[in-house]
Amino acid sequence: MHYSALAPGKRLRPALCMESARAVGGSPQDVLDAACALELVHAFSLVHDDLPALDNDDLRRGRATCHIKFGEATAIMAGDALFALAFRTLRNQMGTDTQRAVAMGWLADTSLELVQGETLDLLSEGAEPSADTLEFIHRRKTGSLIACACAFGGHFGGGTEAEVAALRSYGERLGLAFQIADDVLNETASVETLGKAAGSDKARGKLTYPALYGIEAAKLRAREESDKATECLRSLLGPTEALLELARFSVERSN
Amino acid sequence: MHYSALAPGKRLRPALCMESARAVGGSPQDVLDAACALELVHAFSLVHDDLPALDNDDLRRGRATCHIKFGEATAIMAGDALFALAFRTLRNQMGTDTQRAVAMGWLADTSLELVQGETLDLLSEGAEPSADTLEFIHRRKTGSLIACACAFGGHFGGGTEAEVAALRSYGERLGLAFQIADDVLNETASVETLGKAAGSDKARGKLTYPALYGIEAAKLRAREESDKATECLRSLLGPTEALLELARFSVERSN
Repeated sequence: MHYSALAPGKRLRPALCMESARAVGGSPQDVLDAACALELVHAFSLVHDDLPALDNDDLRRGRATCHIKFGEATAIMAGDALFALAFRTLRNQMGTDTQRAVAMGWLADTSLELVQGETLDLLSEGAEPSADTLEFIHRRKTGSLIACACAFGGHFGGGTEAEVAALRSYGERLGLAFQIADDVLNETASVETLGKAAGSDKARGKLTYPALYGIEAAKLRAREESDKATECLRSLLGPTEALLELARFSVERSN
Repeated sequence: MHYSALAPGKRLRPALCMESARAVGGSPQDVLDAACALELVHAFSLVHDDLPALDNDDLRRGRATCHIKFGEATAIMAGDALFALAFRTLRNQMGTDTQRAVAMGWLADTSLELVQGETLDLLSEGAEPSADTLEFIHRRKTGSLIACACAFGGHFGGGTEAEVAALRSYGERLGLAFQIADDVLNETASVETLGKAAGSDKARGKLTYPALYGIEAAKLRAREESDKATECLRSLLGPTEALLELARFSVERSN
């Protein structure tokens, strides 16, 4: 659990949660438990996705994957325990019982979507490429948890319902941009830069944006979604510089 | 998810939850979502425990296990999704936000204990038998979720803190009795009666009560725990006949 949750990573979801709190006038420090809960769900999903029966990846975040390091049984159990720990951590988040009960429901919803996305992703390997299927998968596999991160920050940061909705829309756009950029990097970057397998999507016949539209069109699509994400921030009254920067980063990053 | 969650089973945890509500003067019908959440966590744990990397069981509840029927990848994902669905279902339980937030925290705690118990159970295969280790494992692997079921019923049924505590103690005792009886059945019953592998604990060098104390002493120990469980019910004012019957059943059952 330590090995996988504390491996070097971008911590995009916690950063989005904390900066979303700031964007509604809240304090990033005050949403730390919610931010950690999101990263724990992310870590759980990576540990299980990497398993031999699923993506069968040996490398993650520049290190051996959990099952390579500790064996398959331990990896399955560690993933399950990280998932449970996410809900326990969210239970400790500052706020009212109503805020916590609502957020736990959101975390359950988004986790279900995440698993649904990963399952469809697996089932669609080698299938006829379809733009609708691809977007359906990406919105669930990546977009949902990223949107939840932004909603959590707004929610526990004291934002209004409209502000939380705006942040959620921002997260959905950014999540899609991030995943398209991920697909492009999988095809263009090296194993050393990525810290995980490169070129593996193509080898497996995965449904990706570059496979469907080509690299350049995929990059353009990511940029468009990133731009739409930043538009969602306009109505917010708190500082949004970091969120704007994260929208840029999600498409311009090299790993 | 349907296949594994709706397979024929005793539904012990939902029954305990509903009858615990009755025992504090509540309505069993009014705690149905909480009862279902518990069964979903149980189903999730069975699907993952049966996986090839873990207990590697082919048969469960008289049918092929999930990974035999649908493949390993689907079984891992189905387990994850059942776990997430448990929290979503608990979110729908009637009651106040405070009741739901508290219960979600309990479900997270008990799920962590469950995974901890299963992990220790695996790690202790072939190890030197120790009564302390065995009880530590059983309290987590089986006792925790059963105690949580009773606490949920009391909690959402409108019981006082003392009533919920009494029900939780009843559940802890009953859970231990149930697991000892399970160990005995694994050694003495047939595959046909059990609907799952028989004699498998011994073959794997699992730490069990019969292995540690012998069959007769193990049966006696189960009876003692069951008797202690019924004592915990004395302070409750609602009808407890069904809970008394379940305590008897947990040690006298044949499958």
